Amino acid sequence: MNGAESLVRTLIASDLNVCFTNPGTSEMHFVAALDKIEGMRCVLGLFEGVVTGAADGYFRMTGKPASTLLHLGPGLGNGLANLHNAKKARSGIVNIVGEHASHHLKYDAPLTSDIEGIARPMSHWIKTSPSSHDIAADGALAVEAARAAPGQIATLILPADTAWNEGTAPVTARLAPARTLVSSEAVRAAAAALKQPDAALMMGGIGVRNPAMELAGRIAAKTGCKIISEYNSARTERGAGRVISNRVPYVVDLALKTLAGFRQIVLVGAKAPVSFFAYPDKPSTLAHTECTFTKLAGIEEDIVGALEALADELGARATPPAHVATLTPPALATGKVTLDGIAAVLGALIPENAIVVDEAVSSGRGFAPSTTHVQPHDWLTTMGGAIGFGLPTAVGAAIGAPGRKVLSLEGDGSAMYTLQALWTMAREQLDVTVVIFANRSYNILRGELAAVGAGTPGQRATDMLTLDRPNLDWVAMARGHGVEAGQATTLDELATQLKRGLATSGPYLIELVF
Amino acid sequence: MNGAESLVRTLIASDLNVCFTNPGTSEMHFVAALDKIEGMRCVLGLFEGVVTGAADGYFRMTGKPASTLLHLGPGLGNGLANLHNAKKARSGIVNIVGEHASHHLKYDAPLTSDIEGIARPMSHWIKTSPSSHDIAADGALAVEAARAAPGQIATLILPADTAWNEGTAPVTARLAPARTLVSSEAVRAAAAALKQPDAALMMGGIGVRNPAMELAGRIAAKTGCKIISEYNSARTERGAGRVISNRVPYVVDLALKTLAGFRQIVLVGAKAPVSFFAYPDKPSTLAHTECTFTKLAGIEEDIVGALEALADELGARATPPAHVATLTPPALATGKVTLDGIAAVLGALIPENAIVVDEAVSSGRGFAPSTTHVQPHDWLTTMGGAIGFGLPTAVGAAIGAPGRKVLSLEGDGSAMYTLQALWTMAREQLDVTVVIFANRSYNILRGELAAVGAGTPGQRATDMLTLDRPNLDWVAMARGHGVEAGQATTLDELATQLKRGLATSGPYLIELVF
Repeated sequence: MNGAESLVRTLIASDLNVCFTNPGTSEMHFVAALDKIEGMRCVLGLFEGVVTGAADGYFRMTGKPASTLLHLGPGLGNGLANLHNAKKARSGIVNIVGEHASHHLKYDAPLTSDIEGIARPMSHWIKTSPSSHDIAADGALAVEAARAAPGQIATLILPADTAWNEGTAPVTARLAPARTLVSSEAVRAAAAALKQPDAALMMGGIGVRNPAMELAGRIAAKTGCKIISEYNSARTERGAGRVISNRVPYVVDLALKTLAGFRQIVLVGAKAPVSFFAYPDKPSTLAHTECTFTKLAGIEEDIVGALEALADELGARATPPAHVATLTPPALATGKVTLDGIAAVLGALIPENAIVVDEAVSSGRGFAPSTTHVQPHDWLTTMGGAIGFGLPTAVGAAIGAPGRKVLSLEGDGSAMYTLQALWTMAREQLDVTVVIFANRSYNILRGELAAVGAGTPGQRATDMLTLDRPNLDWVAMARGHGVEAGQATTLDELATQLKRGLATSGPYLIELVF
Repeated sequence: MNGAESLVRTLIASDLNVCFTNPGTSEMHFVAALDKIEGMRCVLGLFEGVVTGAADGYFRMTGKPASTLLHLGPGLGNGLANLHNAKKARSGIVNIVGEHASHHLKYDAPLTSDIEGIARPMSHWIKTSPSSHDIAADGALAVEAARAAPGQIATLILPADTAWNEGTAPVTARLAPARTLVSSEAVRAAAAALKQPDAALMMGGIGVRNPAMELAGRIAAKTGCKIISEYNSARTERGAGRVISNRVPYVVDLALKTLAGFRQIVLVGAKAPVSFFAYPDKPSTLAHTECTFTKLAGIEEDIVGALEALADELGARATPPAHVATLTPPALATGKVTLDGIAAVLGALIPENAIVVDEAVSSGRGFAPSTTHVQPHDWLTTMGGAIGFGLPTAVGAAIGAPGRKVLSLEGDGSAMYTLQALWTMAREQLDVTVVIFANRSYNILRGELAAVGAGTPGQRATDMLTLDRPNLDWVAMARGHGVEAGQATTLDELATQLKRGLATSGPYLIELVF
């Protein structure tokens, strides 16, 4: 068995059984090994950002790393933006990046580049495997690195000769060690903080999912504290029966207003809130200047265990949770398209157990109120802010959670960065309904231009913020990628189209023009 | 004037007057400055690979750097693949990459990343400008770095506070120093080599353009040497009246055959030929083992001066050039689509002074014979091998050379990486005719799978090498981006469509299905 086969068998033996691929010449032995060996689902993306974003979405829904297969430095480069998002989401991914055969590197052939250098800013773990005798052991190390709680980006560089020379028996990666327990001091400090007035639990990481959120609800019921969460989250469990986590708003002034009332914030897998961007004359940190932060658990620690201990400390273990969402969805809004109207249509129609991948950017900031008391669902947002996260993450979520409907909410500007994901949805017949919010502009930047005090845009600036002249035709682009599509220009049409998409088995795209 | 304005005025004062942009929040002051100050053409790309590839194409046609405007680390990451190509092409580019305000970095907001680390593998020069008082001087340094012969990638990182705080007067970049003259020893050694039997001049860099090629032709006429060139070139001048440079083939066995007859190769802006990839049991270096290489001039040296000196040394300065192409284009081929037939149609119809951007990959390897004795034109190929080079480079070439028809030859697989370039063609009404060779596969990889000895593909491997299930509909995708398009399924239809495209003012896309 050659090195490539020994690596593929290692991955499969280590319970890694999905590979998102965009291969090239230097990866052909790996492709041949995937071909020959049973047990790995191979999903082709036509651009590397699709591949890495899909691996992120897959981890978010399964808690298991997938592998990617990328072609040398430039292929990895194309995948970096979504690796950035995955790294910030603390998703575990094993990147397999092909490299020239070791003896070929000194000739500086066209595709030669510093692959480790490209990988470094977006990886927690990097290794260039030196030979076919090491590749199985290195593959197992990569899986172990990817699994380290809460998840890490592991990049394994595979020189072509390491793939084609004789390998060894496969190696099985060790299971991840249990998450670190928090100290009893941390628990007592958190309990003391929550007994103060104006206190909040601030949730992040797996803290915005059950069982953590239910424990937070019990604690809130007992202490009267509020529950808030970071603006971004890898995967929040929401909807009827779930404890509500209120996101700190994106806009600095709104965030300051939301946080102004708190003097005690206990951090549970979350960081102290900071603004997404800096603005002249606005603070970077968002809490009241007299607010005290108490860390109960870091994102990598035993968040559930810490909350159990905290609930015990407060005598809240059996207290019925507060802030539980009811099933009282909004009525279908009709008529002219407004952002509140869109939110109501989504809230009314979101199906039970749906997975919402939200890259709606400016259009989506106000969706929460109308989508809280609705069917239970998961809500995934970008963690790194790199645009082009949504469609690929929807691909990976659909593959990671078959049988669940994925609803991909996309700004037209952001969807353009990785629109090739549509083809993978079509090929794999993924159950994804995409809604494109076609406001024909980088609408967020109009707000940002004002927020940074850069004034009212003239013609040249407007041209850099608008996607018109010509308008993008998303129905045509979707069909070009093999995805059926329809347009909506009113809320009534949005509801009709959404019902059609949700009833479709396989992908469907809705271009909502407003 | 704030730092952003001081930087924009510096760039304009330094004769840099095109900015390919994909901005975000941290770049809003720069956008506002571009808005306010006359003299910079701003071209929006909807993906950063479009932006960086366009800057590459612009430099190839003008010899002048353009700037890019990119949004933090992930935006730069999306542009890396085409920066890799530009770096290998030795194109000069000034990247302006926005960064968080300096005081905001310590909070590790979602978009925080190691921008210098991301830039390093694909940049010759990097600086994070420390303050608004330094940004004008740093901008001038960046332009100077980009201009250093033959061209360099300069990445200037612009923290938001450096943009918004008070700046200084603009600084004008110094002109690039003249290229280094080669030594008289190098000239005499080259002359001695060419007087031996079985000698060739191997051309690269600006050596494949006039006046270098005409000098090479004179030298060849005098000495009987052959003229060859690297497989890839940033810009080769070809067609009637030009001296023919024969590309060393991509396929290793063909390259070895082509080069087997040479015992003396004089390098003029070229490197000794190496294979694009390594293969088991094939050599990395492509010449005969007894071939001697003599370097006349490196890619950064005074190639034209060196050839003048060499011609003088050989008494060839007034010798009429050998190997001059005639104007005897092939007849229009008809009927079923074949690669030779496509080449004949292209050769018959290629308009005078056209710019051909060739990312036809496997379909295009045999185009040379039928496109040699045709109307004079420029031929641009990838230098770095990173896929997705073609459409963006066509954008930049069209902006750099208005009034010339750009013919963009694209594999369907490769076109998918940066298809967003179509929208920029539409918005800027660029005179680009795109031909998509829709063979519905990564056809090159079928060959490579065999070449690396990985055997015949089974179903899983085939699925990773094919773009079918569903087929991409390039006509729909083009129209979705605002570009008119038509399909051809025979050589006759290709000719009809190509005539239509070439007669169109503005972009037109042809999907050639075969």
